[in-house]
Amino acid sequence: MPKSSEHLPPAPRIADWERMGFTAANCPIRDVMDQVSGKWASLLLLELVDGPLRFGAIRRRVPDISQRMLTQTLRDLQRDGYVSRTVYPTQPPSVEYRLTQQGESFSKPLLGLVEWAARNHDMIRHAREAFDGAAAA
Amino acid sequence: MPKSSEHLPPAPRIADWERMGFTAANCPIRDVMDQVSGKWASLLLLELVDGPLRFGAIRRRVPDISQRMLTQTLRDLQRDGYVSRTVYPTQPPSVEYRLTQQGESFSKPLLGLVEWAARNHDMIRHAREAFDGAAAA
Repeated sequence: MPKSSEHLPPAPRIADWERMGFTAANCPIRDVMDQVSGKWASLLLLELVDGPLRFGAIRRRVPDISQRMLTQTLRDLQRDGYVSRTVYPTQPPSVEYRLTQQGESFSKPLLGLVEWAARNHDMIRHAREAFDGAAAA
Repeated sequence: MPKSSEHLPPAPRIADWERMGFTAANCPIRDVMDQVSGKWASLLLLELVDGPLRFGAIRRRVPDISQRMLTQTLRDLQRDGYVSRTVYPTQPPSVEYRLTQQGESFSKPLLGLVEWAARNHDMIRHAREAFDGAAAA
């Protein structure tokens, strides 16, 4: 298959980072990506795209995350500035999470990835089936 | 902070997926994302954006990945159709990895995320410092 890098948009290239003194191991971009690239972090950010949610509502929308992992991931997202946490003095107190401006900004390229996944998941499922079929043969 | 969803581009919204019968737990998009959202998968895809690389070259460019994890991640990427693997009959045989057309296509939204990270990593570092300072106080 021919290499078709001429179809890529102008974009940062590994060589550019290397000229800036970054390698895969010390790259500040990787430091950012590692925090948000986990399956739960990106999923929780997407759940908040449509508006703020209380803790219990997030939990219901992502039923297969453990309470412990949900708490930790929300805290990590808050620490990195993507999410803000507000406690309302109700009885009992309710805790609401919402995207910050930084979180809103990040959600745009993240949604770009999700749109790609939505358009291409059939192709990927077929690739998996073909690979597994070849491996079994 | 006001909710500024009016600044978001037209994009898939969680409610749209839900109308299609998908929840966070059974979503085919999540099935795609879970495979590529790991730190190593996205990093390896980016290493291949500039062209094919042999196994040893990838290893040198990502010095902190174990050989076992590198082998497994490349296999997962091959299984999902992002990467092709070619064995050349040299002595010893050399193994080359390159992005498929699907991998090239996926690299575009992935690079969108990376560009965002490149522009914003200072902001994120400051958010972390502020959070840790407040937690310590």
